[in-house]
Amino acid sequence: MADEIRVLGICGSLSEKSYNKAILRTAQQLAPEGMVIDIYEGIGNFPFYNDDLAASAFPAVVTELKDKIRSANGVLIVTPEYNHGIPGVLKNALDWASRPTGDSAWPGKPVAMMGAATAQGGTVRAQTQLRLNLLPLNAYPLPRPEVLINNVRAKFDDDMNFTDEQGRTFMQQQLVAFAQWIRRLERGLES
Amino acid sequence: MADEIRVLGICGSLSEKSYNKAILRTAQQLAPEGMVIDIYEGIGNFPFYNDDLAASAFPAVVTELKDKIRSANGVLIVTPEYNHGIPGVLKNALDWASRPTGDSAWPGKPVAMMGAATAQGGTVRAQTQLRLNLLPLNAYPLPRPEVLINNVRAKFDDDMNFTDEQGRTFMQQQLVAFAQWIRRLERGLES
Repeated sequence: MADEIRVLGICGSLSEKSYNKAILRTAQQLAPEGMVIDIYEGIGNFPFYNDDLAASAFPAVVTELKDKIRSANGVLIVTPEYNHGIPGVLKNALDWASRPTGDSAWPGKPVAMMGAATAQGGTVRAQTQLRLNLLPLNAYPLPRPEVLINNVRAKFDDDMNFTDEQGRTFMQQQLVAFAQWIRRLERGLES
Repeated sequence: MADEIRVLGICGSLSEKSYNKAILRTAQQLAPEGMVIDIYEGIGNFPFYNDDLAASAFPAVVTELKDKIRSANGVLIVTPEYNHGIPGVLKNALDWASRPTGDSAWPGKPVAMMGAATAQGGTVRAQTQLRLNLLPLNAYPLPRPEVLINNVRAKFDDDMNFTDEQGRTFMQQQLVAFAQWIRRLERGLES
């Protein structure tokens, strides 16, 4: 229906048993009524960004992602933290989708982010770097609440279900806030 | 000779006509006596980092880079700035070379960085993010001087020679300071 909120979910981990992939699947389940999260799994198939390639043979996979970003009401990025930053594969996808100059898929796009880590920070530094990267893209990241899932190994059962009640509540709260953020920005544009 | 300083040069751009590649070549020419800069061009051949791949089929190209980092006295990273951060291809290489846990190539490695941009910031934000990424790697980035080359189109001749005298002086000063930094850290370890 027209009022449905379509969110494109992107995970920064390529590992099959990634906790962050599992968090993204959990977000699908926890999405509030009226929000549907579609997961895009193609970023591992992108070439590395290269000005020459962008000019001579713009990759079809990038165009596919750009189309999906454009047709979504918002983007949910779930990312692990690698060396205090986001994975190269995720940065590469963000950069590609911003190209070529003047045809970026990002301007005005609402973005929410979550992350899970085995250590205590819960990806806070990766998410801080991600917010800085979203700034020149002119995307509109949801300010609050943050979803920083630390000590992640203890919070999943053997079937990779995210069982931490506090964490699930934070995720629900963020998804509700994200729906409100998307609607507010869309209504604001109409008026 | 034994006293020679071998520096491994890595560029974050894959483009053939990259200004940053040209800056790295310029650094080779400007290196002080006793310093040799070897350029590593393989990071574009890396797979995207993936825990599964790291565990099951650790890529030979990554081992090659790790060996080169380890056998070098220092690493010089020359990077463009993409959306206020470093390119995915460069972050991916940094991350790979830090794996597996306990076998990172980075701990204690002196690192210098330079960057060139068409805009005014001269990659200052990319370099700031790079410094944050080097922190958990326990690499030893040279604090000063910075080499932030802005407005780069006006500073090259038609043959891609870097002709800006002020910029060349900054580069030389950094390379001399890098040689001192490397020697100081090495002597400090011996004593």
